[in-house]
Amino acid sequence: MEFKFADTVKNLNPSAIREILKYAADPEVISLAAGNPAPEAFPVDDVARISARILKERPVDVLQYSTTEGYGPLRSRLTSYMKQKHNIGRDFDNILITSGAQQIVELVAKVLCNRGDVVICEAPSFIGSLNSFRSLGGRLVGVPIESDGMDTAALERALKANPDAKFIYTIPNFQNPSGITMSMEKRRRLYALAREYDVVIVEDNPYGDLRFEGEDIPAIKSLDEDGRVVYAGSFSKVLAPAIRVGYTIAPAELLQKMIVCKQGEDVHTAMWSQMICEQYMATVDFEAHLEDLRSIYRKKARLMISLVEEYLVPAGITYADIQGGLFVWCRLPDGVDMPAFCKRAVVDYKVAIVPGNAFLVNETDPCQNFRLNFSTPTDEAMKTGVARLGALARDILG
Amino acid sequence: MEFKFADTVKNLNPSAIREILKYAADPEVISLAAGNPAPEAFPVDDVARISARILKERPVDVLQYSTTEGYGPLRSRLTSYMKQKHNIGRDFDNILITSGAQQIVELVAKVLCNRGDVVICEAPSFIGSLNSFRSLGGRLVGVPIESDGMDTAALERALKANPDAKFIYTIPNFQNPSGITMSMEKRRRLYALAREYDVVIVEDNPYGDLRFEGEDIPAIKSLDEDGRVVYAGSFSKVLAPAIRVGYTIAPAELLQKMIVCKQGEDVHTAMWSQMICEQYMATVDFEAHLEDLRSIYRKKARLMISLVEEYLVPAGITYADIQGGLFVWCRLPDGVDMPAFCKRAVVDYKVAIVPGNAFLVNETDPCQNFRLNFSTPTDEAMKTGVARLGALARDILG
Repeated sequence: MEFKFADTVKNLNPSAIREILKYAADPEVISLAAGNPAPEAFPVDDVARISARILKERPVDVLQYSTTEGYGPLRSRLTSYMKQKHNIGRDFDNILITSGAQQIVELVAKVLCNRGDVVICEAPSFIGSLNSFRSLGGRLVGVPIESDGMDTAALERALKANPDAKFIYTIPNFQNPSGITMSMEKRRRLYALAREYDVVIVEDNPYGDLRFEGEDIPAIKSLDEDGRVVYAGSFSKVLAPAIRVGYTIAPAELLQKMIVCKQGEDVHTAMWSQMICEQYMATVDFEAHLEDLRSIYRKKARLMISLVEEYLVPAGITYADIQGGLFVWCRLPDGVDMPAFCKRAVVDYKVAIVPGNAFLVNETDPCQNFRLNFSTPTDEAMKTGVARLGALARDILG
Repeated sequence: MEFKFADTVKNLNPSAIREILKYAADPEVISLAAGNPAPEAFPVDDVARISARILKERPVDVLQYSTTEGYGPLRSRLTSYMKQKHNIGRDFDNILITSGAQQIVELVAKVLCNRGDVVICEAPSFIGSLNSFRSLGGRLVGVPIESDGMDTAALERALKANPDAKFIYTIPNFQNPSGITMSMEKRRRLYALAREYDVVIVEDNPYGDLRFEGEDIPAIKSLDEDGRVVYAGSFSKVLAPAIRVGYTIAPAELLQKMIVCKQGEDVHTAMWSQMICEQYMATVDFEAHLEDLRSIYRKKARLMISLVEEYLVPAGITYADIQGGLFVWCRLPDGVDMPAFCKRAVVDYKVAIVPGNAFLVNETDPCQNFRLNFSTPTDEAMKTGVARLGALARDILG
């Protein structure tokens, strides 16, 4: 039969990244296109030990239906941890465990957006979230990002032009794809603007613990006096992504609707995954583990930057400074055809990178950027990959 | 702040079942309200053995990001299994692994429904699916259910009255909540009507393997010649619900959109869960396991029926015959206030049952039914629980 798809998904296509990753299946291709954590960062032995114990001591808890809100002990533990460490969570807030942080942004859009409602996001931004908003009929309005985060003057213009905007979506730390971190001043300004224009803020923070330079900047949620910030946290980058555990601390009234919708999506998050997270936090020195992760990523990031300096900068490619996260955001000189560069990189030079337009509100907007990932490839692969990009750059840029 | 919720979720509330289950938290209350599989049916030792092995031999596969489509070996294994055992899956079909079957029905609604589009469902039907359709703006049209399944004459009237209906949602085997199974004749008629009116069928089959009497009836999907049936399968009742693994075999073109939407919901289903399912099917005698389950549920169902006969039938309560599944659907005599009966049951007699109107398209429609579950309670709890209901029935009905 011929399907009549909903208007919102008619033009929704698999992301450009997936297209690139198809080429990356070729074993000769070196992928700098992924966003996976470093496999050497997975605490394999601890997970195996905890798994054996919970399956021995509490098998029915691991296997039986549970509540949509999430595993009680994990909710309590995260509530105190986030309050103590980040001053996140007030009386009006509650916590919900989700199947990865992706589900949080999707649920917020589902409970707030009528078809055509405006969602304000950084441009560029994380493609998974953008597609999620699109699939629910959100109309995306992009706000440019500067070296210290969202351009707040442009944000104010966007809010003025869209007085019914439902929420502002931001990744304040080591943003995907740009690697940029929002300054404290801009976090305050963003919160003040959200108050003035009465919109919700969704603060997506999957990379916050992966800071390898500089000082932590308080979360926007820590400023939240009137219950308008939804904080989205994740175990994907600090424990393992395939367990699919995220958590949101958000106003209880909003969470209550998100819980009803989550019930209709997946009933609850897999219990093994939730119990692993809880017991990991309970029985392992979590802060020491985060320090280990930071040193793994610091080393990988420094290697990537030195390779970019060696092979790409001499050819006129620039990049944005980073203090954490998984990505380096590079920029080709004006006049160079960026999509063609990325295509030639993977087809002729066997190195996969992500074309920057994939992260835009409109993929057809002009864009000179591409994204490099340093967390997934081995050091060797990074060296060969960036050297190949350098050869391509010299070939094209002379 | 005051939240402006989407129109679709404004009136969406936690299900009535959840309200009942709040009372059930009282340790004195016996719950016949759940829909959980029997904990003694969980293959705990096999899961522990498989878990230890995969974490030892393939830890990175268990922990690293994977593809949205699902774990390759599980997809292949299920594809052959479903083809061989149920004649499900043709050239135009593909398979997607989901985070429980709940996600399948939600994704179908998401890719097909504009706000206000009609979804035809059995009345009564599974509340999780109904809420899922509501949360996406589907307009529910209920078709009464007879002792051999959906009233197909009423279905035809519903299709005629709603020519733009997007899909028909059915649970053909041991339906939740009614326990009713659709006859082969009606399956054929349903498929023919779907063809005639050009709508999709969503065949939700979580209980199909739990037949403890009579002969299996072929799936509607096995009749699907022109690619309009979405088959939803689940490991929740045959392995364990808290692993959250479902699978859909459906036309590839439809699946492709569902995959993009799933990516925006939870990226992929937890890998530990998927690998457990795959290795369970690979290393355990799955058919023998299903036979064990059937004998557990046969015994529990027979006990429940004998208790209903002993305590409730003499008071004028009737029930629908069942050949499988987890539920018995009872009916109070006309004139008895059903919601009041259920409320008194839990408050005064300390036994939780689900009022039937919770499963209706409009919860305020008249309804004389309530649902009993026999899979979760122990035999002892069932005996005490139904005896208490009998006392209440005698008290009210004289």
